[in-house]
Amino acid sequence: MTYLITGIPKDTNEESPIRQDVDDWYLEQTGPSGNRIQLTLFVEALIIMQNRSTTDDLSYFGLAGIHGAPWSGWGGQTSDHQTKDENFCVHNDYTFPTWHRVYMALFEQVVYEAMTEFINDKVPTEWQTECHKEAKTWRLPYWDFARFARGTNEIRLPIIATIPMVTINVFGSPVSTQRKSNPLYKFQTESLMGDLGIRDQGEEGPFHKCRSTTRYGLLDGYNEDVWADGGQNWLRANLALNEHPWNRDPTVWEGFRTLQEAVFQLLKTSGGSWSSFSSTKYKEGSEQKGYTNLEFIHNNIHNWVGGFLFRRPTASSRLKLWGGGHMASVSVAAFDPIFWLHHCNIDRLTAIWQKLNNSSWFDGDSEGVHHSQLTPFHNRNGNLFVSDDVRNWTDLNYDYAITKKDEKDIRDDIATLYALEGSPFQINIFFGQPDGKDFHDLGSRNFVASVFNFSSAIKNSNCGNCIEQKKRGIYSEAQLPATLAVWSHQELEKTNKEPEVFYVVVNSRGESVTLDDEAITVDLYRINEGRGVDSPEDHRYKKAVNGRRATVDY
Amino acid sequence: MTYLITGIPKDTNEESPIRQDVDDWYLEQTGPSGNRIQLTLFVEALIIMQNRSTTDDLSYFGLAGIHGAPWSGWGGQTSDHQTKDENFCVHNDYTFPTWHRVYMALFEQVVYEAMTEFINDKVPTEWQTECHKEAKTWRLPYWDFARFARGTNEIRLPIIATIPMVTINVFGSPVSTQRKSNPLYKFQTESLMGDLGIRDQGEEGPFHKCRSTTRYGLLDGYNEDVWADGGQNWLRANLALNEHPWNRDPTVWEGFRTLQEAVFQLLKTSGGSWSSFSSTKYKEGSEQKGYTNLEFIHNNIHNWVGGFLFRRPTASSRLKLWGGGHMASVSVAAFDPIFWLHHCNIDRLTAIWQKLNNSSWFDGDSEGVHHSQLTPFHNRNGNLFVSDDVRNWTDLNYDYAITKKDEKDIRDDIATLYALEGSPFQINIFFGQPDGKDFHDLGSRNFVASVFNFSSAIKNSNCGNCIEQKKRGIYSEAQLPATLAVWSHQELEKTNKEPEVFYVVVNSRGESVTLDDEAITVDLYRINEGRGVDSPEDHRYKKAVNGRRATVDY
Ligand SMILES: [Cu+2]
Ligand SMILES: [Cu+2]
Repeated sequence: MTYLITGIPKDTNEESPIRQDVDDWYLEQTGPSGNRIQLTLFVEALIIMQNRSTTDDLSYFGLAGIHGAPWSGWGGQTSDHQTKDENFCVHNDYTFPTWHRVYMALFEQVVYEAMTEFINDKVPTEWQTECHKEAKTWRLPYWDFARFARGTNEIRLPIIATIPMVTINVFGSPVSTQRKSNPLYKFQTESLMGDLGIRDQGEEGPFHKCRSTTRYGLLDGYNEDVWADGGQNWLRANLALNEHPWNRDPTVWEGFRTLQEAVFQLLKTSGGSWSSFSSTKYKEGSEQKGYTNLEFIHNNIHNWVGGFLFRRPTASSRLKLWGGGHMASVSVAAFDPIFWLHHCNIDRLTAIWQKLNNSSWFDGDSEGVHHSQLTPFHNRNGNLFVSDDVRNWTDLNYDYAITKKDEKDIRDDIATLYALEGSPFQINIFFGQPDGKDFHDLGSRNFVASVFNFSSAIKNSNCGNCIEQKKRGIYSEAQLPATLAVWSHQELEKTNKEPEVFYVVVNSRGESVTLDDEAITVDLYRINEGRGVDSPEDHRYKKAVNGRRATVDY
Repeated sequence: MTYLITGIPKDTNEESPIRQDVDDWYLEQTGPSGNRIQLTLFVEALIIMQNRSTTDDLSYFGLAGIHGAPWSGWGGQTSDHQTKDENFCVHNDYTFPTWHRVYMALFEQVVYEAMTEFINDKVPTEWQTECHKEAKTWRLPYWDFARFARGTNEIRLPIIATIPMVTINVFGSPVSTQRKSNPLYKFQTESLMGDLGIRDQGEEGPFHKCRSTTRYGLLDGYNEDVWADGGQNWLRANLALNEHPWNRDPTVWEGFRTLQEAVFQLLKTSGGSWSSFSSTKYKEGSEQKGYTNLEFIHNNIHNWVGGFLFRRPTASSRLKLWGGGHMASVSVAAFDPIFWLHHCNIDRLTAIWQKLNNSSWFDGDSEGVHHSQLTPFHNRNGNLFVSDDVRNWTDLNYDYAITKKDEKDIRDDIATLYALEGSPFQINIFFGQPDGKDFHDLGSRNFVASVFNFSSAIKNSNCGNCIEQKKRGIYSEAQLPATLAVWSHQELEKTNKEPEVFYVVVNSRGESVTLDDEAITVDLYRINEGRGVDSPEDHRYKKAVNGRRATVDY
């Protein structure tokens, strides 16, 4: 069988429907004005796929199996990778984003086809037209793992990935609802996965003894019955996503502060190189890579979601975050349903980066591989895909809301999601250098004021003298009154000179953060007020002092 | 209906079958020579009970409802408690152990009757005799929450409480197995629990929005769909059971170091008072209570298992252990199936204490209530139980292995489970006082040697001079050679005098522990060896120095 990957069919004159943020989508589907139709179709389609024979290429097991275990080939192709696991999927190489782009499109297309099957077989005639319409505009939702959960300042797994039971429609007159086991919560098999070709993954975990995907449920020294369905300890995943620095290896992690900062760094470049962006691959002798890249961020999410410590840490370590799970092992990661939501976001980040680095494509070290075949995936012409086929993702009949925008608006969105409102950065301002480690608040030496979440600060402040913050590409401005502070400073220092202005950017963990120099500007402005000032020019603020980034120890 | 609580029926000449440690029982049932019969019967009986109408007094819901919500009365009785929740169950009072003793016997009896129903209705004739025999000797197993999981030095929830699916028998020829949803993992309802009379518990959690019991799954600020079946984040419970001191309130927790130490302290007394032992109740003006008591230990287990922080801690706190669950709320705790395993152990600890404090019963402040009615429970004569009816627990046709032993052997067991091998206490020995905070190892000032896990140390050491450890009631002895250490010490100090001997007891977290003075003795012994020593008396060790507990800062 040669399965042709085309994306979900659409008329050529229609715009590509968008892939949505999974929490936004879920909240819209289940909210007061939501009709739950797409939710029902997605859930029922996944149930159909998960119930198909594991030897069926288009079963959930068959599709997930392309990524690694059980290494049994797919669509008539056997793997041409000569790695020990002989898996098709590409990691640590420049086709990492493009191979997975096609993989997601395949999954999306098979889900759509299962939706159609469900509608034709199980939905009463009077509902079929509406359901087909919803299926046609449905696209795989993405988990924006660097965006705080709605109304919180915390990163979390998607709602739909953490609920064991999901409420969906029973179509009829009237429409009622039912609760079903949620196929996005976990994937369960009838047989031991070992009997389906899933091998022991050694240090990563005894996945052959599982009958269900698990998050942090494989624990060395636990009775083996616990492993079979180790359960979904998803609070541990949430903890890891927010507190991952405990695992920091200084040689690898330098500058990798929070997930939001990492994604912001990844996307803020322009004129970047595909070789640097796309993969963790490092060719000896080539230029130093950027300090982060797509695949590196992606790898960490895998680890934090699944759990990557099957063996218990030494007695002196704390128990915190001990445990293994499917997402942390390349060979079995795709069996956990959250894999698809995760990789959909990886594709979205790729698309965003492409829009901002329009002319960048396989270049330098990566130039040679844009014609490499993305085995085992066949395009609409029956040929194996190459990366060039999917440079334009809309050829696969989907898009993202953000990539429909122009560059300026994309940069605004990025800042909103990952740098400004999304992340509680705080700028602390000092007249004179602060102390090296004490740069947090009122009690710190030379402290003047803080700006917290730029945009809201603008709304709330009655401006006098000024601070201006600038982010590359976009500007967000806040102004704080400094008259009294300057006066006090001059009194204390017995001087008439303007104070030296310093600032420290502090992240949500109270650590100082170094953004690039152009990202932030903190300056002191003066205006002449009161009697004897007549010229309109004198009523304008004039920059009096250029602020500088303070030197702090951490 | 008046349901008479008699315990599981047995012939008067038979000994009472024992309630077993739940992990031991599960491992025996599922091990190579286990027949899984009792496991199958227990699971099937619970499924029957959980499927009964919630208005049936003998349904799982009906039995759990006696403890708190939905406050609808039971067995024809309405509550006589005038608390705001009008629940029957006794907390913060001296009948706490006896009320719950009858409650466990009731549950055990109803499970047995459901086993019988299952056997008669569903088991093929050729297996019925064997199954009835197993049901008759089955008793409710207990979760020994202060005992380390087998082969570990960590406290854990029982295996059977952490596996979503359980493998049980299908009786026939031959016997095969099947996997079923494990009724001890969680209790799930068809309706929202709010529709079954479970109210919002405010700070403790929105239990009315649940359809399943949860552990650490109720999280303020999470989408409400997550609450309905918040899942079983049981790794958080395990973490809390082992690392609870982070929650320590110094005014309450003084001396409460680990669960094992607490249980050891609870049981090591003799001639104790029921008033002190039984409850957290404190009558103003009465004598100072012992520093721990049964109900206090019990309360903490409830909190740690369920999760007791529905509202998120302040931003500066770590996320660690945030979350609420049924076990932490008196009103709904009994719905989590682990409740019964927990309270079975509370009953066992009571029975052990009774054996060791044979003449102690309701006394002092508690004397007046031994005739109070334990509503709504009726005894075999159709009267409401009073505490005196259950002073002898074997009248309810069950016993525990440990309480069949004599006092000396019970004390040995307690020490083994909770003080010696169970807990990795370490005794560090010094010639001269150690430094206040540095008392851990070779690098510490004046360090001589460590004794780790007394009994194994005895086996491994080639004895020379001696150390003797003594626990109240039992003795465990280890001997370490000190000849060279004494010689070095005398050389260094330029003295011929015997060294001063000090010791520090260190627990598994590296903290110094103060056991009572009689618990440990560390002394230095001498023997005269070599030529010129003829008298047999000279070949005996003689105590040279009395060791003392060192003064350390923590
Ligand atoms: Cu991958
Ligand atoms: Cu209780």
